[in-house]
Parts: sequence; structure tokens; C-alpha cells
Amino acid sequence: MAYHTFTESNLRDFTKSIFLKMGCSANDADLAADVLIKADLRGIDSHGVARLTGYVRLWEKGRINPTPDIKIVHETPSTATIDGDAGLGLVIAPFAMKVAIEKAEKYGSGWVSVRNSNHFGIAAYHTLLAAEKDMIGFAMTNASPLVAPTFSNERMLGTNPMCYTFPAGKYPPVIVDMATSAAANGKLEIAQRTGKPVPEGWIQDANGQASVDPHELKKGGSLLPLGGDREHGSHKGFGLSATVDILSAVLSGANYGPWAPPFVSFMEPSANPVGLGLGHFLGAMRVDGFRPVDEFKNHMDNWIERFSSAKPISEDQRVIIPGEPELVAEKERTINGIPIIEEVCNDLNGLADKLGIDRLL
Amino acid sequence: MAYHTFTESNLRDFTKSIFLKMGCSANDADLAADVLIKADLRGIDSHGVARLTGYVRLWEKGRINPTPDIKIVHETPSTATIDGDAGLGLVIAPFAMKVAIEKAEKYGSGWVSVRNSNHFGIAAYHTLLAAEKDMIGFAMTNASPLVAPTFSNERMLGTNPMCYTFPAGKYPPVIVDMATSAAANGKLEIAQRTGKPVPEGWIQDANGQASVDPHELKKGGSLLPLGGDREHGSHKGFGLSATVDILSAVLSGANYGPWAPPFVSFMEPSANPVGLGLGHFLGAMRVDGFRPVDEFKNHMDNWIERFSSAKPISEDQRVIIPGEPELVAEKERTINGIPIIEEVCNDLNGLADKLGIDRLL
Repeated sequence: MAYHTFTESNLRDFTKSIFLKMGCSANDADLAADVLIKADLRGIDSHGVARLTGYVRLWEKGRINPTPDIKIVHETPSTATIDGDAGLGLVIAPFAMKVAIEKAEKYGSGWVSVRNSNHFGIAAYHTLLAAEKDMIGFAMTNASPLVAPTFSNERMLGTNPMCYTFPAGKYPPVIVDMATSAAANGKLEIAQRTGKPVPEGWIQDANGQASVDPHELKKGGSLLPLGGDREHGSHKGFGLSATVDILSAVLSGANYGPWAPPFVSFMEPSANPVGLGLGHFLGAMRVDGFRPVDEFKNHMDNWIERFSSAKPISEDQRVIIPGEPELVAEKERTINGIPIIEEVCNDLNGLADKLGIDRLL
Repeated sequence: MAYHTFTESNLRDFTKSIFLKMGCSANDADLAADVLIKADLRGIDSHGVARLTGYVRLWEKGRINPTPDIKIVHETPSTATIDGDAGLGLVIAPFAMKVAIEKAEKYGSGWVSVRNSNHFGIAAYHTLLAAEKDMIGFAMTNASPLVAPTFSNERMLGTNPMCYTFPAGKYPPVIVDMATSAAANGKLEIAQRTGKPVPEGWIQDANGQASVDPHELKKGGSLLPLGGDREHGSHKGFGLSATVDILSAVLSGANYGPWAPPFVSFMEPSANPVGLGLGHFLGAMRVDGFRPVDEFKNHMDNWIERFSSAKPISEDQRVIIPGEPELVAEKERTINGIPIIEEVCNDLNGLADKLGIDRLL
């Protein structure tokens, strides 16, 4: 696949220009660009600048408010609900995490449910804000319905990611950041581009029959929950996805389940919404709310070392600590630049022409 | 399979007598019996009275303290660490949940990490204590190492369950209660008794090769994380299991990973422990810390109705709401009694003879 490589700062400036053209404040444009560039740096290409076209289209449709009045609408010492005023999730989620961190500083932990938001980028961006403060970070979000519950062929849930981040001592944080579907949508998109069949258990066709055709989603098929089928625990993937949906949307007053607004602009949100926008759930717990930070970090280091050296099945592949591949990508791309596939480059340059800013190339 | 049916109160009295013989206080014996009987009522036979023999053996080995001094050793307004003094997890976990609930009453949420404990029974028992108070309940625990991380054939993690419980309005709570392994150990035990092969993706042999032989665990094999293999997302199951391990044990100062003490008395705990006993993590969040309880419950009811009526693949099987099968079992068994397989009856009567109490039959 043809691609072009850009420096982090090139991509960042370009991305910021787009958000400024949408009418975001300089601070918000900086922050939103930072979230997207972090995804590209970490090798999560599906959640980086490749999403810019999508955000712009939603803004053109009036579904993203570039100057939101983000505010706390309900709270206790350790909990809050935030209304994102239909702004960019990329800006609302860091705001919510800041509230969670402030509550944790005072009361040990902080938990924030968010309504009236949009796609928030990679969950790990937000949890890392907590980890930097010696806190354990939690982030989840509901998303456009693409996943069918066990026994159904109706798209009822998003790929609804959960993310847990634990600071360590001499090692980087352990980051569990995962879609609760068998495969993230980004992996399906890669298979669609290459035309290769996907493993059984990722998707089903419109009738609910197992399929390996990556284009099945365009023909009424659906993604499957983690586990794939009942025998392999898909009811657990469904349960996790339900947990994300309820904490993010039922708790905050956002749209849940099949009412979650689609990310793509060519599909209209429900005419009878059950809440406002998309929902997120973010949390921060002070490590020293449980034990001294140094003790915890020493044991995290020991945990990492012990799991890294667990007996490997094959000598050429040891156990991968959650978050490790993204860290490797971040180090490499910070030095060598970020490769963007030609298809996305063309999209971005089309966007530049439309909005009247400099092209990438 | 031959079985005998007992009334709830018969089984409860018997179980309480056993705990009294171990030296538990009347209150603790009541509580511990309640946790086990709840499992049997809910159809989770692997976690009910079938476990009594195991608890007694651990007590005989001096690994369970029947009169523990359970106490808070560290706290902030919304967090705490509890030392269970090597008592029964069946007693320690409800104590910890009570602390979490009290903190939630005052500060919106409460989060408790527990060290120096033992097996805590079914997680849903504890989360339901929160749901009764219009709170969202969280419970997880680490456990005896049986599960290999992705790419490894070493048993490093327990079946480490996660449980999330959400109160609803006219419907019972939604309860997501799941092992983070592809299959719970109880399901494997059933296959071992019937001699039937298990689905691929549940276990691997001692060399890390896929197997369908339910006896593989006795030959050095291991359970697999939810997902089964890398292609089907086993790194996600591993990540979830790691999350449970860290929140329950690294955070509290219990034994984590391969150091978690085995439940079976014939295996000795590690000679070089990294902490004290097993660990749990429990939490409670007040629903009205986020939005009015009635609003939340109305939307939960709507969530349940919408998901129950999602388009079914086959007309004879609609979507099952998490927690529904256990509720059906509880209703049925409360009326018709609890079936206990002969093998377990014999074990329990052996226990009765040994401890000098009345037999079940």
C-alpha cells in the first residue's frame, strides 16, 4: 500500500488548522490535534488524522459544535455528570478527565459520566492524563451501533472500548485499551482495503450467519462481541459492551444502544433520541488512596517483569504487556515520522482545498 | 447424573453448621452460608455448597482464619484498603462492600481494595448489596493461577471474574458477572465429569497447543483468556484479567499473578509470596451521584426492553439480558429446591461425619 511519511509537527500543524477552520478556539484546536496525533504516533491509524474528514463532515451537518459550553450538570464530591454541549469528544473527554483528577486529588477518586458528546479519539489519551498524576485511569465510550448482541442480528452496540491504565515505576504504564467487540472496526477496514477474508468470529452476515467477508457490514451484517459466539463466550463480550453503554450513556443521559448517533455523516441520528449525543465514562483513582505510590510502582515493575518472562510457547514470541506495541510504535514514529496511506493523504488534501488551507504534500 | 434435591433452608442450616464447626462466629457463619446458598439458588453450582469441602481443607491446613480481625489499613474519603486477616472471603468481601457503600453514601462513590483474603464466592452477591441501595456495584477478585497469557503456556492468572451490577426499575438489576477466561473453571469441571470434549479455544495443552480434552489441566495444560487465541482477541481477555489482578492484588498488597495462593489445599502457596493472601476489588457508586434515580431506572427499563426485543437470529431464542438466566434459576429453585449431584452429596456427608454434625440425607 502506498503511503507518505510526515513529521509529527507537520501533521499536528495541519490538523490544528482544520480544527481552527471549523471555528474551534486555539486551545481546543491544539488539544483536539494532540489527541489525534497521539493516536497516529501510537500506531492506531484508524483513530488519528484519518478521522479528520469524518469530524469535518459532522461539523458541516451541524452535529459538532466548535465552541461548546462544556459544564458540570450534577455532582457529589467524587462523582459528576458533564454535558458536552455537542462539542468535539476530543475536547470534552480531557475536560471530564480533569474534573475526575481534581475530585481524586481531594477525595481519593473521581468518576465522570458524560453526555452530549462525540467520538473521543483513543481512550488511552485520557487515561494517561491520570497516570501522569500517579492515578489509575479509566475511560470508556459508547459508539455508533455496529455490534449485534449474542443471538441477534441487529446492530445494537458500538465497538464500545474500555481502557484501564496503571502507572508503573521504571517501566511505562500498563495500558489495557480494547474494543469490546471481537475485532475493532479499524481492523475490518484494513481487511476491506486489502480484500482479505477475516477470521471467523469477527462478523456475521445480515441473517446472523458466520461470515469471513470483510464487506459484510455494508450488506447489513454486524460485528460480533468479543468471544465471537455463545460457545466461546460472546455473551461476555456483550456484557462488557453493555457495561460501557450503561456507564457512558444511561448514567449520563446520552443516547444508548441503537440510539447512539452514527459517526458517519450520511446516516442521520435517531429521530426519537433517548438522550443527548454520545456518552463517555471516565475515572481516576489516586494510587496513594490505597497504598504508598512507591510500593505500588515497585510491585507493578515486578508484575511487568514476571509476565514478560512467563514461559513462551515459541521462543521467538514472549508475552506482550498490554500497551507495549503502542509504546514501540510511538518511539519509532517520533523518530522516523508517521506513515499515512495514500487514500488518507488524498482525503486530507481534499479537505485542505475545501477549507482553504495548505495541503499536506 | 444422579442428584438429590434439598430445600434452601436445609442446605443453609447444614452449611452454617459447617462454618460454626470451623470456629466462625454465628454472624459470620450466617453470612458465609448466605453467600454460598445464593450461588446454589442462582444455578452457579460450582460456587455453592460444592465448595464447602475446599474451605474446610484450607481451614485444616491453617490457611483460613475463622475469627479474623478484618480492618481498614489505609483510606481516603472515597477509597480504602482492607486487610482480611486470612479470613473467609465470603465474610471479608461483604465487609469491604459495606465500607464502599458507606463511603458512597457520604462522597458519591466508594472503592475498596482487599488483601489477605480467600475465595469470595459469587461476585454478584456483593454487587447486589450495592444495587439494593440504588448504587452501581463493582466486584472483582484474583484467583488461583490456571490461565496462560497470550503467547505463553505458563499458568499466570486466575479465571479472575469481573462483575458490574446496575439497578433497574420494574425489572431486576442487570448483572454482568463473568470470568475473564474463555470458560469458567466450573464449565470445565462439568465436561470432566461427563467426559465430553470442550470447544476449541477454552484450553491448551502443556505445550501451548490447542486442545479439546477437558482433562488437559491435570496434565500441565492451561485455560485460555476470553478470545481463545490472538486472532480472536485473547490479548483482550488477558488484558481484562490483568486489570482484575492489578486492582485486586497489586493495589491492595495481596499476591498477584502466579503468586496467588491456590484454592486447593494439596498445593502449597508460594514460599516467596509478594503479598498477603488473595485480593479483591469492590466498588459502589450512587446512581444519584450522576442523575436522579427515577430517571436512571426508567432508562434502564427501556434499555432492557429494547435489548430483549432486538431482532433474533432464530425466533426461538431472543437476546438474553445479562443476569437473566441466574434470576430464572433463583425463582425456580426457591420454589422447587436445589438439586445437588450425588458426588457433592457424598462429599458433604463425609464432611458431616468428620466434623460431627448431622448428615444432609
